[in-house]
Amino acid sequence: MTNTQVTLVQIDNYGPWTVTPEPRREADLQTMQSRLYADISQFVGNRDGYTFFTRFDNMIAVTNGLTMADHELLQESVGNRYPVTLSLGVATGTSPVQALSDATTVVQDAGSAQDEDRRECLEGRTIDDPHRTDDDVQIAHFDVVDATGQYTDELNAFDSFIQIEQGYAELMRHMRHAHDSLSFFVGGDNVIVVCPDLESDDYEEAIGHVETAVDVELQVGVGRGSSAHDAGFAAKHALEVCRADGTRVELA
Amino acid sequence: MTNTQVTLVQIDNYGPWTVTPEPRREADLQTMQSRLYADISQFVGNRDGYTFFTRFDNMIAVTNGLTMADHELLQESVGNRYPVTLSLGVATGTSPVQALSDATTVVQDAGSAQDEDRRECLEGRTIDDPHRTDDDVQIAHFDVVDATGQYTDELNAFDSFIQIEQGYAELMRHMRHAHDSLSFFVGGDNVIVVCPDLESDDYEEAIGHVETAVDVELQVGVGRGSSAHDAGFAAKHALEVCRADGTRVELA
Amino acid sequence: MTNTQVTLVQIDNYGPWTVTPEPRREADLQTMQSRLYADISQFVGNRDGYTFFTRFDNMIAVTNGLTMADHELLQESVGNRYPVTLSLGVATGTSPVQALSDATTVVQDAGSAQDEDRRECLEGRTIDDPHRTDDDVQIAHFDVVDATGQYTDELNAFDSFIQIEQGYAELMRHMRHAHDSLSFFVGGDNVIVVCPDLESDDYEEAIGHVETAVDVELQVGVGRGSSAHDAGFAAKHALEVCRADGTRVELA
Amino acid sequence: MTNTQVTLVQIDNYGPWTVTPEPRREADLQTMQSRLYADISQFVGNRDGYTFFTRFDNMIAVTNGLTMADHELLQESVGNRYPVTLSLGVATGTSPVQALSDATTVVQDAGSAQDEDRRECLEGRTIDDPHRTDDDVQIAHFDVVDATGQYTDELNAFDSFIQIEQGYAELMRHMRHAHDSLSFFVGGDNVIVVCPDLESDDYEEAIGHVETAVDVELQVGVGRGSSAHDAGFAAKHALEVCRADGTRVELA
Repeated sequence: MTNTQVTLVQIDNYGPWTVTPEPRREADLQTMQSRLYADISQFVGNRDGYTFFTRFDNMIAVTNGLTMADHELLQESVGNRYPVTLSLGVATGTSPVQALSDATTVVQDAGSAQDEDRRECLEGRTIDDPHRTDDDVQIAHFDVVDATGQYTDELNAFDSFIQIEQGYAELMRHMRHAHDSLSFFVGGDNVIVVCPDLESDDYEEAIGHVETAVDVELQVGVGRGSSAHDAGFAAKHALEVCRADGTRVELA
Repeated sequence: MTNTQVTLVQIDNYGPWTVTPEPRREADLQTMQSRLYADISQFVGNRDGYTFFTRFDNMIAVTNGLTMADHELLQESVGNRYPVTLSLGVATGTSPVQALSDATTVVQDAGSAQDEDRRECLEGRTIDDPHRTDDDVQIAHFDVVDATGQYTDELNAFDSFIQIEQGYAELMRHMRHAHDSLSFFVGGDNVIVVCPDLESDDYEEAIGHVETAVDVELQVGVGRGSSAHDAGFAAKHALEVCRADGTRVELA
Repeated sequence: MTNTQVTLVQIDNYGPWTVTPEPRREADLQTMQSRLYADISQFVGNRDGYTFFTRFDNMIAVTNGLTMADHELLQESVGNRYPVTLSLGVATGTSPVQALSDATTVVQDAGSAQDEDRRECLEGRTIDDPHRTDDDVQIAHFDVVDATGQYTDELNAFDSFIQIEQGYAELMRHMRHAHDSLSFFVGGDNVIVVCPDLESDDYEEAIGHVETAVDVELQVGVGRGSSAHDAGFAAKHALEVCRADGTRVELA
Repeated sequence: MTNTQVTLVQIDNYGPWTVTPEPRREADLQTMQSRLYADISQFVGNRDGYTFFTRFDNMIAVTNGLTMADHELLQESVGNRYPVTLSLGVATGTSPVQALSDATTVVQDAGSAQDEDRRECLEGRTIDDPHRTDDDVQIAHFDVVDATGQYTDELNAFDSFIQIEQGYAELMRHMRHAHDSLSFFVGGDNVIVVCPDLESDDYEEAIGHVETAVDVELQVGVGRGSSAHDAGFAAKHALEVCRADGTRVELA
């Protein structure tokens, strides 16, 4: 059984801030939010977690191995270096979707995303070390078969993007509703999916579904570990096998 | 008539680099590519352009006002500070899609995105100052009506994201095929669209289409200017009017 | 004759901020201030200026080629992305020391560095384009002769640093008082000096003075240009000649 | 007794890289090295260590609490995101100067700072957890008495800097030779000193020495802890007492 620890990272009162006293330069907002994401990705990543930019104002992280004290330090460090602050909700469970749902609830219960008085709340609970296992996290790393040859070098950059985006949109919805999984676009033609206990057949089914629905061919490497990095790293290696052998699904 | 200058920013041979000699830590890749995007966004943005992260390995920028020398400096500066290099294609035209298509072609003609020998190519042409006008760029800034109340504070963070993502995916495809426009998700519930000469009715139609197709309610502010910043800033102010008055389409 | 445009960049009310409500984590302050410096260095640098970190809370830049509008944009962009704001003073003159002194005065006249009510002031004047010449800026780039062989590979890292620091401290004081020049340590064993119209003999004299005073052997390349980058780039090339030929002073 | 763990961070073959194939833009080098420092400061800092930029190409960190695995991860992460790599030497001891000296030796033994073949070496040893104590690190945080009133608001920015720099240069040399301590300028008018077991009298003596030698008045807060952050945070609080009560030396 998996036991995924999920953290919702929400910028406090971000929407109003971006237009107060008047709209701020878009390039500055883009720079600030992508650097904030990069910093969180480093902090969580060098503790073997994964952070996904998602909407940027709401980011989702897999934080197995991080304590509440780590979360508190992240909040403090961001508060010392950025013009915005973070609220964090943490929850765990066998279903990543349920864990995220619980993490969201504790933040929502603390106040609205646009509540001026809700600042730097930190809610929820982490998995204590003694209860962590090598099977806690399952990560699937998908990419598009020969994206460069089929799209990047052939279509204009936006139509390539539409193709990849469509494959992602379809996969994201399907994995969430059919397989209780959270899918995130991570750049290029890569999608990383945080999964419960899924089998090879589930991935075959998902790849088939996406190909039928939007005619985008995917391949996937799947890994398991005590942290997102361990599981994800195994998944990347498995995906290398797909690329080398032309297979569609490889479990580490 | 609009005359949009579009730049395709492509990281040279990025895919192979990310797995050579073996897969690199995902958190490092995420950090590196989002900081690279942030730097490009600052460089282009403080010359009044807009840069969109798109796929991160292929970014798209609206660069009216930037010269080829500016593009060259961006390439040199990135080459001095990152482990990867950039190839740039620049083109202009009354249709943003056609301009991007031309910008893509000049890069593709220089070599494959995964060609080891294609490094830091810079191709294409910019609009000379004497030919620039205050009408060159049209930007539409969309967001979701009451996203916080309807989604962020109600659904779990991933289902909110799916809703917003669906609205974006539908808008992106529709604006590209029905209106020759390039749509980019820029975080939160915001989508910025680079348009040719469109009228109020076109935006009404697009909003109606998205609502019918995926039941997501959008509002939009539209601006015009000699640069992406000028047009986009006017669009942001127009969107503030939508938010204040409850209207759906506002032209600056 | 040189005509150096100098900008004083002062973080508003920084000291009090670092200890309010209680002392902030040192590592966060170090990170924030060095990234702020890096951003200013990029903004000014990709307009061909030089920025020196100096004390970090007070930075000094050579900004020939930057307009007051550029300075305003820098202030706005920093204000949008950092928890602190900047006040800027700009002045010009044949003596870099006098120019900096004037730039400092206009900021001091606007209020104390620790005045809560003095925020984002922008004072002074720049050189209008028609008045700029190819001789406006003179830069001397010094380094220590065989620093790696004599110090870095021989002494412990701190004693190497003390040696280099002593050479810098002596050079800085001497160039300021004997030659109206501003000297800045820029990392490694490099010191960049912003000079008025100085001759080869002046540099010979300065090198002799430092060698006698603290027994540190320096070499220097000197360049001239319409901007700090043009002058500094010529100086770097001249210094390469010293390194290759074993000469002590080279004028581009 | 203190037991300081010191890490020497040396950029591999940096000097040659900065001028290959020809000198790189100074602003890019300044940006790259200050951001690299900022990243190391975050990585070490959020594990309760302190990093000092020192010469930028050779940085010194107090790393009590960091394991060799942490050091390896830092190397890997920097190698994935920067155009340069790091070599690290780690050593421990009751004298910070001796520890740094040992850390330097293991790096020097691995090869010259400008040896093309010495890349990412990691040498030395850390203190095992069971041997760590709450007294391992002693930090003294100095600043200049009323620097703003006496210098920043009175002298031009460079002459203020010269005053502060002179105080620092004198303190650095004295603390190293008289008290086996490592002193680092950290911005503004602040100097952080990594000390062995020193008493109140030692600090009184040092402050007196600097005042006599260069007429700069210092005050100092001193703290002790199991990590640089714990000791340094206590020192910052003690320095606040000096500021409030007008005392010169405060031990936490």
